[in-house]
Amino acid sequence: MNALESTSTRPYLIRALYEWCTDNGFTPYVAVLVDDSVQVPREYVKNGEIVLNISYDATSSLKLGNDFIEFKARFAGTAREIMVPVSRVIAIYARENGQGMAFPVPVPGGAVEGGVGLREAVIRCCHPGLDPGSMDCGSSPQ
Amino acid sequence: MNALESTSTRPYLIRALYEWCTDNGFTPYVAVLVDDSVQVPREYVKNGEIVLNISYDATSSLKLGNDFIEFKARFAGTAREIMVPVSRVIAIYARENGQGMAFPVPVPGGAVEGGVGLREAVIRCCHPGLDPGSMDCGSSPQ
Repeated sequence: MNALESTSTRPYLIRALYEWCTDNGFTPYVAVLVDDSVQVPREYVKNGEIVLNISYDATSSLKLGNDFIEFKARFAGTAREIMVPVSRVIAIYARENGQGMAFPVPVPGGAVEGGVGLREAVIRCCHPGLDPGSMDCGSSPQ
Repeated sequence: MNALESTSTRPYLIRALYEWCTDNGFTPYVAVLVDDSVQVPREYVKNGEIVLNISYDATSSLKLGNDFIEFKARFAGTAREIMVPVSRVIAIYARENGQGMAFPVPVPGGAVEGGVGLREAVIRCCHPGLDPGSMDCGSSPQ
């Protein structure tokens, strides 16, 4: 298997930082660049992005897969099913201190997921200024 | 718990990339900045660094803990016990394509492990030019 055939490291890193958040009592937030492949409540999308609280307390049936992040959560009292392709996740960080990791923004045509090789390893510093999300649990701004 | 009290993300990221390597059939290498706290065969240290093959095939009793990486491996036919503080790991990457992640180099006095907060999240791109190690299994240069 060569670099072009390898799978993305992104889902592995997302799971790692989710575990780190949980072990430290932090609330894991994921920032998602929304397009038609992303199943989220559109009314909470701002500037093409949505920030989701994926903590155990805020979700049910959470699945952090290699291809998709899936869970159920309540938005303004209504249960919604969320499905986010891992390639659309642009950051995962702790709400409490902003520590985490940002990923390269996907480009049209799916080049990032196609065969990223070393580009995948260029991780940007996470920006804690991301606007926290709009979910019922743990969504208060910092 | 605030940023100063949180544990390092480094062991979580190391485990994530180890799993990614294994799932993709790649050989995980770790680059280590050697000091007195690092238990490795000194004869294989070059320029203060050693690169270790931590694949399942090259090691036994591998433990990727939050504080230490520990395993047994053979060097030039002799079994050695290896123990590396996670804070001394400066990169983990796949031998086959160099994909992986590098971490901030520890500074004297242990500031990186003390309370790194956001600095921990500044991940450098891994450099595939790191000299592969000297272990018996899978140590041939790229």
